[in-house]
Amino acid sequence: MTIGFVVAAAVSFLAAALSGKGFIPLLRRLKAGQTIKEIGPNWHKSKQGTPTMGGVIFITGMTAGLIAGAVALALSGAKTQEDLIWGTPYTMRLVGGFLMALAYGFVGFADDYIKVVKKQNLGLRAKQKLLLQILVAAAYLLSMEFAGALSTIVTVPFLGQFDFGIFYYPFSAFVIVGTVNAVNLTDGIDGLAASVTFAASAGFLVITGLLNSYGLSIFAASLCGALLGFLLYNFHPAKVFMGDTGSLFLGGAVAALAFGLNLPILLVPIGIIYIIEAMSDIIQIGYFKLSGGKRVFKMAPIHHHFEMCGWSEMKIVVIFTGVSVLGSAFAIYSVFWLLNH
Amino acid sequence: MTIGFVVAAAVSFLAAALSGKGFIPLLRRLKAGQTIKEIGPNWHKSKQGTPTMGGVIFITGMTAGLIAGAVALALSGAKTQEDLIWGTPYTMRLVGGFLMALAYGFVGFADDYIKVVKKQNLGLRAKQKLLLQILVAAAYLLSMEFAGALSTIVTVPFLGQFDFGIFYYPFSAFVIVGTVNAVNLTDGIDGLAASVTFAASAGFLVITGLLNSYGLSIFAASLCGALLGFLLYNFHPAKVFMGDTGSLFLGGAVAALAFGLNLPILLVPIGIIYIIEAMSDIIQIGYFKLSGGKRVFKMAPIHHHFEMCGWSEMKIVVIFTGVSVLGSAFAIYSVFWLLNH
Repeated sequence: MTIGFVVAAAVSFLAAALSGKGFIPLLRRLKAGQTIKEIGPNWHKSKQGTPTMGGVIFITGMTAGLIAGAVALALSGAKTQEDLIWGTPYTMRLVGGFLMALAYGFVGFADDYIKVVKKQNLGLRAKQKLLLQILVAAAYLLSMEFAGALSTIVTVPFLGQFDFGIFYYPFSAFVIVGTVNAVNLTDGIDGLAASVTFAASAGFLVITGLLNSYGLSIFAASLCGALLGFLLYNFHPAKVFMGDTGSLFLGGAVAALAFGLNLPILLVPIGIIYIIEAMSDIIQIGYFKLSGGKRVFKMAPIHHHFEMCGWSEMKIVVIFTGVSVLGSAFAIYSVFWLLNH
Repeated sequence: MTIGFVVAAAVSFLAAALSGKGFIPLLRRLKAGQTIKEIGPNWHKSKQGTPTMGGVIFITGMTAGLIAGAVALALSGAKTQEDLIWGTPYTMRLVGGFLMALAYGFVGFADDYIKVVKKQNLGLRAKQKLLLQILVAAAYLLSMEFAGALSTIVTVPFLGQFDFGIFYYPFSAFVIVGTVNAVNLTDGIDGLAASVTFAASAGFLVITGLLNSYGLSIFAASLCGALLGFLLYNFHPAKVFMGDTGSLFLGGAVAALAFGLNLPILLVPIGIIYIIEAMSDIIQIGYFKLSGGKRVFKMAPIHHHFEMCGWSEMKIVVIFTGVSVLGSAFAIYSVFWLLNH
């Protein structure tokens, strides 16, 4: 049982660490690094030379880990495990969810590509990006529906089950697209998005174990391993940024885990940092418009606010990751509650 | 220059050959083989025990080959090569095209999954499959459009260039979805779809070389290598079938090459067998309905007709692949013509 996710974590870590050796010189050569957004803090200009699109490192790592883990689990498996892997909608959601994450990674790649190669700082237009993101969510939800791997009943720990009926589809698309964009916003400081998402995927790993969904355990373990391998290069001072290629992929992967378990509500505690980041941005922009030019935070999203307050990048990463760990712990507790009720 | 596609072909062949060793026992264990469609020839019942979804073997192989080839090319590369890989829309179309192929593979997987795991012989309903297929084509075309990697001008060798304007989108979606389904129809005899597609991708490999699009050379070389690795297990008597997972992926991959080169018209000569297979099916069904029950072929698609005529599976594979080679040769000739006009 455990062989699958141990192999997945080990292979994805090694594959990410190794592919970093190959990809970083390649990405550096690709161009003289990303043009730093003019709206970021001034001192970020020193990051001008760092290559981006580093998300390919953990995407490669996770792909390798997933394949190795699935083969290891299946070859080691007793009859009952096979049922757990293959005989439930989990497999469908596992493969479909990974493909959804890859598709989001590709939308991010298109964006990075325009920024980096075509030297247009703004990338894809916001509307174009949103349209593609909605299309990906729709394709995922539709294929799950057609394959009989989707239920419109949403389970909320402590409160019960609610059948959303037809509203499940716009609700889910909103949650998926929201998650993807919130993770994208979280990626603004060396190691931040990767560390926070490591905490989130470790939380999901425990939960998939509690719920005996071995396929998704391999998914979560591969994500953990690949992110660790990537962090070797992404911790401050970062040798590579993940880019939108990376952050949109991570958003898709985290959403895939929550929907794979049929527990999207878990994104609230596990993704608490993503939510805070997104809310800080929305509050800042909304208040700015309503008040005619006043600000709530020194800068949004909120990690820039703390930077302006004088916190070091490392301190922000440690504290935000700590909050994610607490959120994950609460999510694990709520799953325990579900198992006992 | 050549290092990229040599590495891609070698790695994808080895990865496919090796992953076959792991996947085939796994797929065999997954279930007692695919339930053979009742509408196929009677003697196909002996294939009842053969596992399906073998497409995962060449999908894994091609993924490995693509990554290895791209890294090898980029690391070996002089400045001018980088421009050729990164500085043109080719990269966008390469990555987007591969993702499109993976998405079609996933639609096929959903179909196989329902057939195999849920033991429902008919899989996804035809309308559901078509809707998902159109959605994937739309997502591909839209993202190419947004990334500035799409031109509505269609080049036809010997005839000139035609700007399709807005009609380019439905036209392209039709060509992509048609190709995917035609390859799906071609997959009905041991080794047939893989051999024919090997000939097609070898043709594309030559053409990508002629047109100096190194990224797509790696794509074509990986496809060739992975298919050879798969054929080790798929030649008559097949130890594994590719399933819809495989045939829809291959259709997507071939379409990705044609659209990646911005020469969709090449699908006519290179994919001549796919077209013959699809036409035979359409003619058979159409004539059957119009004539009130008469048949043109003993059985459709046409490879079953030749089987009923007493041809061995091997003979059909050899002749159909030979026709594909001739089609590829004509496609190569037409590209030479383009280069000289």
